[in-house]
Amino acid sequence: MVKVLVILYNGGQAAREEPRLLGTVENELGIRPWLESLGHELVVSSSKEGPDSDFQKHIVDAEVLITTPFHPGYLTRDLVEKAKNLKICITAGVGSDHIDLNAAVDHKIQVLEVSGSNVVSVAEHVVMSILLLVRNFVPAHEMIERGDWQVSDIARNAYDLENKVVGTIGAGRIGYRVLQRLLPFDCKELLYYDYAPLPPAAAEAVKARKVDDLKEFVSQCDVVTVNAPLHEGTRGLVNAELLKHFKKGAWLVNTARGAICDKDAVAAALKSGQLSGYSGDVWNVQPAPRDHVWRTVKNPLGGGNGMVPHYSGTTLDAQARYADGAKKILENYLSGKPQEPGNVIVGIGKYETSAYGKR
Amino acid sequence: MVKVLVILYNGGQAAREEPRLLGTVENELGIRPWLESLGHELVVSSSKEGPDSDFQKHIVDAEVLITTPFHPGYLTRDLVEKAKNLKICITAGVGSDHIDLNAAVDHKIQVLEVSGSNVVSVAEHVVMSILLLVRNFVPAHEMIERGDWQVSDIARNAYDLENKVVGTIGAGRIGYRVLQRLLPFDCKELLYYDYAPLPPAAAEAVKARKVDDLKEFVSQCDVVTVNAPLHEGTRGLVNAELLKHFKKGAWLVNTARGAICDKDAVAAALKSGQLSGYSGDVWNVQPAPRDHVWRTVKNPLGGGNGMVPHYSGTTLDAQARYADGAKKILENYLSGKPQEPGNVIVGIGKYETSAYGKR
Repeated sequence: MVKVLVILYNGGQAAREEPRLLGTVENELGIRPWLESLGHELVVSSSKEGPDSDFQKHIVDAEVLITTPFHPGYLTRDLVEKAKNLKICITAGVGSDHIDLNAAVDHKIQVLEVSGSNVVSVAEHVVMSILLLVRNFVPAHEMIERGDWQVSDIARNAYDLENKVVGTIGAGRIGYRVLQRLLPFDCKELLYYDYAPLPPAAAEAVKARKVDDLKEFVSQCDVVTVNAPLHEGTRGLVNAELLKHFKKGAWLVNTARGAICDKDAVAAALKSGQLSGYSGDVWNVQPAPRDHVWRTVKNPLGGGNGMVPHYSGTTLDAQARYADGAKKILENYLSGKPQEPGNVIVGIGKYETSAYGKR
Repeated sequence: MVKVLVILYNGGQAAREEPRLLGTVENELGIRPWLESLGHELVVSSSKEGPDSDFQKHIVDAEVLITTPFHPGYLTRDLVEKAKNLKICITAGVGSDHIDLNAAVDHKIQVLEVSGSNVVSVAEHVVMSILLLVRNFVPAHEMIERGDWQVSDIARNAYDLENKVVGTIGAGRIGYRVLQRLLPFDCKELLYYDYAPLPPAAAEAVKARKVDDLKEFVSQCDVVTVNAPLHEGTRGLVNAELLKHFKKGAWLVNTARGAICDKDAVAAALKSGQLSGYSGDVWNVQPAPRDHVWRTVKNPLGGGNGMVPHYSGTTLDAQARYADGAKKILENYLSGKPQEPGNVIVGIGKYETSAYGKR
């Protein structure tokens, strides 16, 4: 009998009414009947913080841990050391930075994620966010809802995406899909910054040019979008120093991980007008505290905030894919079948991907 | 000396602070110095309703009328008959439905618009609106701003655009640009409804299929977007009867003209959940009354409203283009040069386009 511990968020009434909300405590990724029919034990909880949480209580003898990036159970080295039976961590979704990957390597715990399960979902959210910042949507909608009509107050800070320079930090699975979707918008130029160049045919297909120096890269962009994993090399990458090199009034979209952008530096840049807008769905702590500055900070004209809770990769379409993918990874594990190589972040005792900054 | 009457909206403080807000009373399309240097008279006002308005007072002896679709001076047949000197109406922008075109034909008044000046601006707004409805953006942003965090309440009605069927009513200059921009989103299918088929190569380039019957067309679409001019054949086209044929829970985007969609029928469909969302920037009366139902109507889950004031075609980029284009049309008229054929809606005594339902 294998003990499987799953950390999900409470979906409440919405989850009881909508069975397709698979990534919730209520709907348990849809795996309970199948897993119990095989005689295994399933523990599902949202309780994840502190020594009395279900997460910390059950991690000591669980063999399998399933988490998501949306309500991350943070598996620190300390907890890895307590998790004597743990063999495999499965991220239902993409992004395993909430797991101490070095500790997992040291303790021969595999880490897998459902690569590709929500890359399209996130890429769509990025394009939407770019458009709604550049076109000044949020203040326009708020104006209508409160009963006003003053077009000049909106139009004075509304632009077309056409003929702007857009650059992505990271041109991997998500960043590349963003570039593909931007192509017909006739941007002035599409740029990317990445440790690895795109294959020539892939770069040519989206007409994207690589810029090697990050400061030079941001100084050329009207719009910067972050599509990189969080690791030691990207934490705090967009900080006060880098923001000085942005074009005055640029727009910044981050749906990667909140901690890649310095919270206070971004807020100050938006407030001063150095940034015209900041949008995304990722936060340095999730759920974001009620008083998190990113919830309400605005540009000097009262707009430029397009923040949402972390859901871009958890649309109903994405949930179907990552619940299915997590189940397949678990099924492979339980039956000793090989895993899809693209899903393996940490194999037994070693990194299998360079995406988290390790070669 | 030619008398030029221009009807624009009051831009207020925003227009005084931002000279690129050319489409305002304050900034007068940037034509005053040039026009006065030629010895002509320029009257610019926002006052357009009723017999005491500047519009009705000055139309009686103006030779040139310049208006915009954003704050339309409605030139009725009655006013055409009073406008004894009027020779040419110039729409700074696209969409001349606020002019009685048949009356203009009868009285040999030319009607021109700046074709193409803001088609990209509007097409971008359409794609943005589709994404923000399908992905349930507005309630997500409102949740963040008020200090909450409940992902399930958002995710239960958030989808990917990928693998959905999107159809445009109208595949002209704007509709076709929408299809081009949707192509890399890997929709299940792109459809269009139009009186004229696209040239085969153009249809193939965006992989769009024509559906001849409107009811059949809407019944196949997850998303319907309206990109047609307003005329006798399109007024009230999306009414209670047609909405019954929509897929349950479809999304509707209208940035064409408000009167193409029946106000109350659309509101009822959104309220009942027959539509999941309605978004756009055009209203049957503009400015929209404070109590216009489209300002605040929601779907049964409390979202699905993406309305904004009429500004999609009046970004700062678009204003530069249509102010420039209107000036060129006026320059051609004053110097007796031929006009760009694509800009002519009504020539002297006859329609020059079939876009307004006349062949």
